[in-house]
Amino acid sequence: MHSMPSVSIVGAAGYTGQETLDRVLAHPQLELVAVGSSSLAGRPATALDPRLNRNGTSQVPVFVANDAALAAGADVTFLCLSHEEAAALEPPAEGVVVDLSGAHRLHDPSQYERWYGFTHPRPGDLAQWVYGLPELVEGTGRLIANPGCYATATLLALAPLKGAIEPGSVVVDAKSGMTGAGRTLKPSTHAGFVLENVSPYKVGEHQHVPEIAQLLGFPVSFTPHLLPVRRGLIATCNVRSTGPDLRALLERAYAASEVVTVLPEGVAPELSRVQHTDTAEIGVFTDRFTDRTIVICAEDNLGKGAAGQAIQNVNRAFGFGDTTGLRLPGVLV
Amino acid sequence: MHSMPSVSIVGAAGYTGQETLDRVLAHPQLELVAVGSSSLAGRPATALDPRLNRNGTSQVPVFVANDAALAAGADVTFLCLSHEEAAALEPPAEGVVVDLSGAHRLHDPSQYERWYGFTHPRPGDLAQWVYGLPELVEGTGRLIANPGCYATATLLALAPLKGAIEPGSVVVDAKSGMTGAGRTLKPSTHAGFVLENVSPYKVGEHQHVPEIAQLLGFPVSFTPHLLPVRRGLIATCNVRSTGPDLRALLERAYAASEVVTVLPEGVAPELSRVQHTDTAEIGVFTDRFTDRTIVICAEDNLGKGAAGQAIQNVNRAFGFGDTTGLRLPGVLV
Amino acid sequence: MHSMPSVSIVGAAGYTGQETLDRVLAHPQLELVAVGSSSLAGRPATALDPRLNRNGTSQVPVFVANDAALAAGADVTFLCLSHEEAAALEPPAEGVVVDLSGAHRLHDPSQYERWYGFTHPRPGDLAQWVYGLPELVEGTGRLIANPGCYATATLLALAPLKGAIEPGSVVVDAKSGMTGAGRTLKPSTHAGFVLENVSPYKVGEHQHVPEIAQLLGFPVSFTPHLLPVRRGLIATCNVRSTGPDLRALLERAYAASEVVTVLPEGVAPELSRVQHTDTAEIGVFTDRFTDRTIVICAEDNLGKGAAGQAIQNVNRAFGFGDTTGLRLPGVLV
Amino acid sequence: MHSMPSVSIVGAAGYTGQETLDRVLAHPQLELVAVGSSSLAGRPATALDPRLNRNGTSQVPVFVANDAALAAGADVTFLCLSHEEAAALEPPAEGVVVDLSGAHRLHDPSQYERWYGFTHPRPGDLAQWVYGLPELVEGTGRLIANPGCYATATLLALAPLKGAIEPGSVVVDAKSGMTGAGRTLKPSTHAGFVLENVSPYKVGEHQHVPEIAQLLGFPVSFTPHLLPVRRGLIATCNVRSTGPDLRALLERAYAASEVVTVLPEGVAPELSRVQHTDTAEIGVFTDRFTDRTIVICAEDNLGKGAAGQAIQNVNRAFGFGDTTGLRLPGVLV
Repeated sequence: MHSMPSVSIVGAAGYTGQETLDRVLAHPQLELVAVGSSSLAGRPATALDPRLNRNGTSQVPVFVANDAALAAGADVTFLCLSHEEAAALEPPAEGVVVDLSGAHRLHDPSQYERWYGFTHPRPGDLAQWVYGLPELVEGTGRLIANPGCYATATLLALAPLKGAIEPGSVVVDAKSGMTGAGRTLKPSTHAGFVLENVSPYKVGEHQHVPEIAQLLGFPVSFTPHLLPVRRGLIATCNVRSTGPDLRALLERAYAASEVVTVLPEGVAPELSRVQHTDTAEIGVFTDRFTDRTIVICAEDNLGKGAAGQAIQNVNRAFGFGDTTGLRLPGVLV
Repeated sequence: MHSMPSVSIVGAAGYTGQETLDRVLAHPQLELVAVGSSSLAGRPATALDPRLNRNGTSQVPVFVANDAALAAGADVTFLCLSHEEAAALEPPAEGVVVDLSGAHRLHDPSQYERWYGFTHPRPGDLAQWVYGLPELVEGTGRLIANPGCYATATLLALAPLKGAIEPGSVVVDAKSGMTGAGRTLKPSTHAGFVLENVSPYKVGEHQHVPEIAQLLGFPVSFTPHLLPVRRGLIATCNVRSTGPDLRALLERAYAASEVVTVLPEGVAPELSRVQHTDTAEIGVFTDRFTDRTIVICAEDNLGKGAAGQAIQNVNRAFGFGDTTGLRLPGVLV
Repeated sequence: MHSMPSVSIVGAAGYTGQETLDRVLAHPQLELVAVGSSSLAGRPATALDPRLNRNGTSQVPVFVANDAALAAGADVTFLCLSHEEAAALEPPAEGVVVDLSGAHRLHDPSQYERWYGFTHPRPGDLAQWVYGLPELVEGTGRLIANPGCYATATLLALAPLKGAIEPGSVVVDAKSGMTGAGRTLKPSTHAGFVLENVSPYKVGEHQHVPEIAQLLGFPVSFTPHLLPVRRGLIATCNVRSTGPDLRALLERAYAASEVVTVLPEGVAPELSRVQHTDTAEIGVFTDRFTDRTIVICAEDNLGKGAAGQAIQNVNRAFGFGDTTGLRLPGVLV
Repeated sequence: MHSMPSVSIVGAAGYTGQETLDRVLAHPQLELVAVGSSSLAGRPATALDPRLNRNGTSQVPVFVANDAALAAGADVTFLCLSHEEAAALEPPAEGVVVDLSGAHRLHDPSQYERWYGFTHPRPGDLAQWVYGLPELVEGTGRLIANPGCYATATLLALAPLKGAIEPGSVVVDAKSGMTGAGRTLKPSTHAGFVLENVSPYKVGEHQHVPEIAQLLGFPVSFTPHLLPVRRGLIATCNVRSTGPDLRALLERAYAASEVVTVLPEGVAPELSRVQHTDTAEIGVFTDRFTDRTIVICAEDNLGKGAAGQAIQNVNRAFGFGDTTGLRLPGVLV
C-alpha cells in the first residue's frame, strides 16, 4: 500500500501558513514532513503554538529554514510567503506546489509591476501555473496558484453570471477581517486604529482586481474595507442583468457543491456561519428601487479564502475527495 | 433681554433622544424645560444616566410622560420617537418642531405604506415639513424633518454631483454602527450575533432610499450593513461621471462648511475622526480599473446623522451660528 | 453489533443547545434522534441554521416540541433549558441525562432560592445528580449536572490547589464572551451597550459561586465581567499559597489530560487558542510585589464551559474515549 | 491684561500627545505655541489629523523637532515621550513641566532599573517632581509627574481607603483599552491578535505598581489585561475592610469632586459613561459570599488616565478652575 503524500510548508509562521499547518495536521491523507520559517527556524513548533505538542503530535518537526523546507523533496509544497518572495523562488522540480501568495496568479507579467509594486523576476514561469479555484476552473496541474481571498469571494459570486450581466455595471464592495491584512505590523493593523473603525483602503486599485478580470473577462470597480473582526470576508456585488435570472444561474452552478451554498431567498450570508470553516455562502437579492441585483458572498478569508482552498486544490491534484480534511460543519454560533 | 429658547424632548430615553438631550444641556443658547419618556416617566433623569446630576445640573427635570413633554409649550420640541408614533402625533401648534424619525421626510404618503410598513395617519400634513439637511437644502421652517443617518451621508456625497453623474450607475454600499439600529431589543442587535460579524440587511429595500431619491431626483441601489462598532457610519458611493470633475464639485460645495470636510486626495475617511462629533468627512477616489469614481462619506450616525443635525437645524431656525453647541473638534484617536 | 446510542436534545435553539447539536452531529458514536425547541417546533432544522441541510445530513429531523424530545426514549438526553425550566422537569426514567443548566448542580436546595431566584420544585432529586467535571470529579452516573462555564474555569484553576492555598485569600476576577449571557434579549446584551465596553455584573453575588464552594470546600470572592467578544472566557484567580509549589500541583493534576494544558512559565492563556475548541489552558504566575500567585484559566464558554464538557460527560458514561468527538486541535489564529 | 499661558507639546504624535494637543486647542485659557514630534518634524499639523486645519485653527504651527519644542520657552511644556526619553531630558529651566511618561513618578531611582528596564539617567532630579493626582495629592509644583492610567484608577479606588483595609488582602484586576498600550507596533497590538481576545500581560510585575505602592504605603497584587476596545479602563479592586464603611469613605472623599463620581449602590461603572471624558466613576459592592468589598473604578485611559489629568494639573498650577477645558459631560451612549 502507498504511504500518504508528504507535505512541506514554506513560511509556516504567518497567518496562511499557520492555518495550512493546522489543516495538514488534521488531514487524514497528508503527512507533514517539514515546516519552514525564516523567523522561527531552529525552534520547536510549540514556539508558534503551545498546542502543537498536544495529543501525540510529537511527530511535528522543529521549524527549519525556508530553504530547507523548499528542498525537503515533499510530494506537496505549500508556499506561504510574501508575493515578492514567492515570485523570486525556483519552485521544487517535482511534486505539487501550491502558492498561496499572488506571485503566480496573473498571466501577464506587466501587471505585477503596476499592482504589486515589483517587476516579476521570473515572468516566463507564469504560463505554467494553474489558477486554482476548484468550483470555477476545470482541470488542475502541478503548479497551482491559490486565489486571493477577495478574488475568491468575488468570483464565486460573479463568475457564474459571466455573460448574463453588464460588465460596466459591476460594483464590488468588499469587507474583510483583519487577518486578511497579514501578520506584518503596520499602523493600519494596530488595534487602536482598527477597533470601532472600518477602513476603506486601496480604493479602486486593489491588486486582486486583475485576477478577477482575468477569469471574468472584464475588470470590476472594487472597494475593499477592513473590518474590526478577526476573520471572515464578505463581498457585496452589485450588478445589472442583461436578462437571465441570476439566482437560477448561481443555484445551478453550486447545486452539487459541498463547499459553496446559495442561500434561500431573503436569507443573507452571515460571517458566523462561515468563520472557521472552508465553506462559502451566497445570498441573492433583487433591488426594489432599481433594476439591479445584489449578490453577496461570505467566506472565511483564511478558510475558503486561503488555506482551505489550498487543501481543496491538493485534494483535486491527488484525486482525494473534494472535501477531505476540510472544515465543513462549522460552528453554529 | 430675551431669555433663551426653551426646549422639550419627547422620547428622550432612546439613543437619538439621549444624544439630543446631551447636546441641549451643553448648548449655550438653549434651555431645557421638559424631557419626556414613556418608559421613564416619573423617574429622575439620573435613571437614564447617573451623570445627569453632576456639575450643578440639578435643574434637569424628572422625566414626564411624552404627552406632557409635547404639551410643554416649549419654543423647540424635539420628537425622538418611532416612525409610526411620530406620524400619528398632532405637532405642537407653536414653536419649532424637529422630528428625528422618518415620519415627515417624504412628501408622497404612499411611500410610507410601501417602505415603512404603515399607512401614514396624517398624509395632509406632509407638505408642511421641510427636509432639514442644512448643507443641501436652503431655507428652513417651523416644522423640520431631520434626515435619516444613511440618507445624510449618501446625500452629502451625492447631491452636489446631481447632473454630473449617470443615475443608473449609482451604487451605494453603507455600513453603520449598531446604535443606528436603535435601542429596541432584536435578535439582530444581540451582541452574540453582532460581534465578529457584519450584517447586510434590508438589501435593496431600505426606507432611506425614498428620501435620497426625493432630493437627488432618482433612486439609487442601496445596501446597508451593520458593523460591530458602537457608532459611526460610512457610505461608499460608486458612480460614473458624465464628464465633470467630481472632486472639484464636492470641494466647491463644502468650501465654506465647518461641518463637512472634503479630504485631500488619497486620504480616506476614518470613523475615528467623526465619532462623537457632529461633522462629516468625504473622500474622493478615481477607480484605476474602470471609468468610475468612488465617493466615501463618514459621519457619526448619532451626530451629523441624527442629534447633531437636529441642533444644527434649530440653530438655523433661530439664526444662531450654524455650529453653535455642535461637537466639532472631535476626538483625535 | 450494537447500534450507537441515540440522542435527544431538549431546547436545541439556544446557544448551548445549538453547540451541543453541532457536536452530536459530528460525533462518531452518537446518533441524533430528536431535537426539541419551544420556539421552532414543527419547523425544519434549517430554520435554525441553513447549513443543517448540507452534506447529506438529511437525517436531521424537524424540530419537535420539547416535551416530545424529552419523551423520545433516547439513550442520551441533553437538557439545554433555563435553570427554572430544567428544575421543574421530571427527568426521563431511563438513559443518561445531561443537564446543561444550573438546576441540578447544587446539593443544598436552599441555595436555589438565594442565588437563582426560585424555590427548587424538586429538592429531593438533587442528591441523585453527579456534578460532571471529568478532570476533577471521579465516577459518573445516569443523571449528570454539567458545570457552569465560570465554575469550570475557576475550578480547573483552583481545585487542584485545595489545601495548598489560604481560603480567605482567594479572589477570582472572570471575563466572559457574550454568548455566555445566553440568547435572551436584554438591555445588557444589546450590541450598542456591549461594544467598546466591559461590564462587571452580579458583583460578589453570582450563582456560580455556590457550585465552586461545593467542590472547593469554601466560597471565593467572584466578580464576573462581560467582554465585547463573542466567545471565550478567562478566570484570573489570585491566591496565597500556604507553602506548596502551586505550579507543580497544577502540572501534576493535568499531566495526563488531553483537554487541559498547563502552559510553560511566562506564557499567558489566549482566548484564540481555546475558542471553538473543547479545551482549556492554564497559566501560572508569581507576583513580584506580593506573596501571591495568579492562576489564569481560559476556555471557550460554549466548549469546555458547556457543550464540549457535556459530550465529555457522555463519553465517560458510555466508556468512549474521553475526547471522542471533541474539538481539540483548535484554530491557530 | 495678561496674555494666556503659552503651551508647547513635546512628542505630540503619540496617543497621549495627540489627546493633549486636542485638549489644549479647546482650552479657553491656554495658547499653543509649539508642537514637537520626531517623526513629523517639518510637516504641517494636518499630517497628524486633517481636521487640524478646520475652523480657523490656521494658527496651528507646523511640527518642529522635539528639541525645538522643548526650547520654545513656553509657560507650560507637556512631555509626551517614552519613559526612557523623558528620563534623559534636562527639563526646561522655567515654566510648568508636565511629564506624561513614568520617568519622574517614582522617588526611588532603583525602581526604574527593576520595573522600567533602564537605569535612571538623572536620579538626583526625582525629588523635585510632584506626583500629580489632584484628588489625592495636595499642593502642586513646577515639575509635575502625571500618574499612570492604571495607577490613577487604582488609587482613586483605594487611596481614600488607606488605613481601613488589610494591605495583604488587596487584589487589583485591571482591564484597559488598546490605546493604553501606545501607538508603537507590537505583535500584541496587532488587531488580528486583539480582536475576540482579552490578554493578561505583565502579570504580577507591571511598572505601575511601584507608584501605587508609593502613595498607598504598600504594594498590591496587580494583574492588567488588554481589552478589545479602543479606549477606557476599569480597575476591579478587591479588598477586606478592617472595619470602617468603605463606601462612606469613598463618598466623602469625592463629595466635592466634579471629576470623580461615586455611583449609587448597585450601579456598576460603565466605560461608555467615561470614554472620551476626563472623568472617573467608582462603584462599591459588598461580596455576599465572603467578607470582602469590591471597588471598581472606570476612566478613559487617555482622559483622566493621561491627557485630561495633565490639563487638570496645569489648571491647578495656574489657579484656573479645576475643570477648565476638561471634558465633563461625556457622551451618553
